[in-house]
Amino acid sequence: MKRISLLGATGSIGQQTLDVIKAHPEQFQLVSMSFGSNLTLGRKAIIEFSPRLVAVNDFDAYTQLKSEFPDVSFAFGEEGLIEAAVLPEADILVNAVMGSVGLLPTLKAIECQKTIAIANKETLVTAGHLVTAHAKTYNVELLPVDSEHSAIFQCLQGENPKSLERLIVTASGGSFRDRKREDLENVTVEEALNHPNWSMGAKITIDSATMMNKGLEVIEAHWLFDLPYEKIDVLLHKESIIHSMAEFHDRSVIAQLGTPDMRVPIQYALSYPERLPMPDTKQLNLWEAGKLHFEKADFERYRCLQFAYDSGKIGGTMPTVLNAANEEAVAAFLKGKIKFLQIEDLIERALSKHCVITDPNLHIIQEVDKETREFVQSFYS
Amino acid sequence: MKRISLLGATGSIGQQTLDVIKAHPEQFQLVSMSFGSNLTLGRKAIIEFSPRLVAVNDFDAYTQLKSEFPDVSFAFGEEGLIEAAVLPEADILVNAVMGSVGLLPTLKAIECQKTIAIANKETLVTAGHLVTAHAKTYNVELLPVDSEHSAIFQCLQGENPKSLERLIVTASGGSFRDRKREDLENVTVEEALNHPNWSMGAKITIDSATMMNKGLEVIEAHWLFDLPYEKIDVLLHKESIIHSMAEFHDRSVIAQLGTPDMRVPIQYALSYPERLPMPDTKQLNLWEAGKLHFEKADFERYRCLQFAYDSGKIGGTMPTVLNAANEEAVAAFLKGKIKFLQIEDLIERALSKHCVITDPNLHIIQEVDKETREFVQSFYS
Repeated sequence: MKRISLLGATGSIGQQTLDVIKAHPEQFQLVSMSFGSNLTLGRKAIIEFSPRLVAVNDFDAYTQLKSEFPDVSFAFGEEGLIEAAVLPEADILVNAVMGSVGLLPTLKAIECQKTIAIANKETLVTAGHLVTAHAKTYNVELLPVDSEHSAIFQCLQGENPKSLERLIVTASGGSFRDRKREDLENVTVEEALNHPNWSMGAKITIDSATMMNKGLEVIEAHWLFDLPYEKIDVLLHKESIIHSMAEFHDRSVIAQLGTPDMRVPIQYALSYPERLPMPDTKQLNLWEAGKLHFEKADFERYRCLQFAYDSGKIGGTMPTVLNAANEEAVAAFLKGKIKFLQIEDLIERALSKHCVITDPNLHIIQEVDKETREFVQSFYS
Repeated sequence: MKRISLLGATGSIGQQTLDVIKAHPEQFQLVSMSFGSNLTLGRKAIIEFSPRLVAVNDFDAYTQLKSEFPDVSFAFGEEGLIEAAVLPEADILVNAVMGSVGLLPTLKAIECQKTIAIANKETLVTAGHLVTAHAKTYNVELLPVDSEHSAIFQCLQGENPKSLERLIVTASGGSFRDRKREDLENVTVEEALNHPNWSMGAKITIDSATMMNKGLEVIEAHWLFDLPYEKIDVLLHKESIIHSMAEFHDRSVIAQLGTPDMRVPIQYALSYPERLPMPDTKQLNLWEAGKLHFEKADFERYRCLQFAYDSGKIGGTMPTVLNAANEEAVAAFLKGKIKFLQIEDLIERALSKHCVITDPNLHIIQEVDKETREFVQSFYS
């Protein structure tokens, strides 16, 4: 029996994590969870899974639930997030919050030697060097939940990391993959949120449309699999059936495939190193697809991809700026404050004005994150 | 340093095995080899690799080489094949002979606890139960060399065999994949030998055109990976880039891909469990292919595939009949004695007249093999 802390329980990954826990009551138990403000889903999860501790980010929701469930412990805000992450009886932390707010709870959970199932890519983007060093120090495993990184992680099982030559991260291309750059000027939020393959949260769906999602994943892959950026390729593959690949120095390529279903990588992270049955998921029969398509990623069409590679290679605080600027710009786009292509423009501005600090500590990262957000916000508020 | 015995050194797999040995002189050494009658290639290999023992099947070639190379030991015929297979200083036997003649040397090498790299699928088809039981008894590893089985073997590394749900063996479709069945009546040997993706020996190229090759591989996969036939699928994939796949019970599919180059699976068998660099092989970039195609295998179009599944499921001596009838029919086609579609007809006749003997021993298998060959030959000689 693995006991699980779940941060971000009412989000898309959080809800699917609960599905996986529910499907395997003999293997998994939810012991703590956090959510932001979705009272309906939060309450439903509390009733269904009876966690011992629940962290809530919205104060009204927090006080209301406290009176509704006297047998459950409640915690509030960022402090509460950390409390839920380090609950002594938990074995695994599933970090499925959105944005760099997931960083501190992850570091604290590592210190308490929890296995980390990481769905929160911003944590690794903004402070990959700290998180991976911390995991090494405390001898803690970082298990990827993103479908691409889970795919690579599965492909590397039983392999000697020294023979790894290249990672090939696949990309669906997002909502606007069939449009030219010049046709993106006036796209709406609704159009951007209409992802062809995956049903995901709003932020990551916009990140898919700008391809920043793939850029963040490249940085995440760099940290998780300890490979230089020159050895990480992005491949457009619109069917999202090959979830990613690893090439070895004998030119053999191992790939992980499946119908698009996030419960598969979530469950793999929870059941690792074993696999558990997943009967509800559709079996992959490639003759039904008939064809799989592949294209080289175009860095001029998808400027965010270029920003991500550049920031990753520069390193230091640059990825922190990339991530913070992107989070703010996407939030502004979702609120209708800026146009779609301004997301890129704002990120570019933030990157070009930043003076890199090498090997930043947590304090510096938090400062740079804050400054970048204020800088980006100054353009539209 | 691994010391290698190579049976079938002048064939296609044999020659590519020598390429691999030559590319890694610090890892591999050829200590014995066998070949049939190709004096030119046989002599070249002796000069280049200085094996201690050479078995030759052709008596004239045998006597000639004996006088040419006084420092090399020579052996002759089937006895010689066994002598080469069990040479005490060898660690690995690469069995790359064609046909069921490879069976006895394999069994003997297993008794001498050699690791077996098996490129000779007929051995496993005709007597899979004996070979796998023997390998278990003597605690010997059977490493696949066929690209499909090597692919599956690579996909299974680091996985619990209990979670394996299905094998998906890919098939190029062979020389006639774009023709209808009714257009195969008068095809020539030259047309049949013109394989679209792989450069291989004549017998296996004809087997690809009839799809018997895939049928034999399904039986081979059944024995190598201990899975019932219901859990082994054949998938038409004309690019031969995905070499095969394994599906696990969480619906995750792991695939091995690469440009078609037999040296990759050969080297993997030799270097296993490590991988060695393979700089001469073309790197796979899927954007260059652009598309990969998949189709369900049609058992009416490819009757040999149906014969193979049926024979495998019936078991006992049935696969022996399937293999022996096929070997003889293909040889007859290559000699111009029968037409292409008669290959299927002769196999069907042999199968339908055979009374199955369950759990046959080596003697029975050899008898059935011989009788089947005579039966098939009686139709055209």
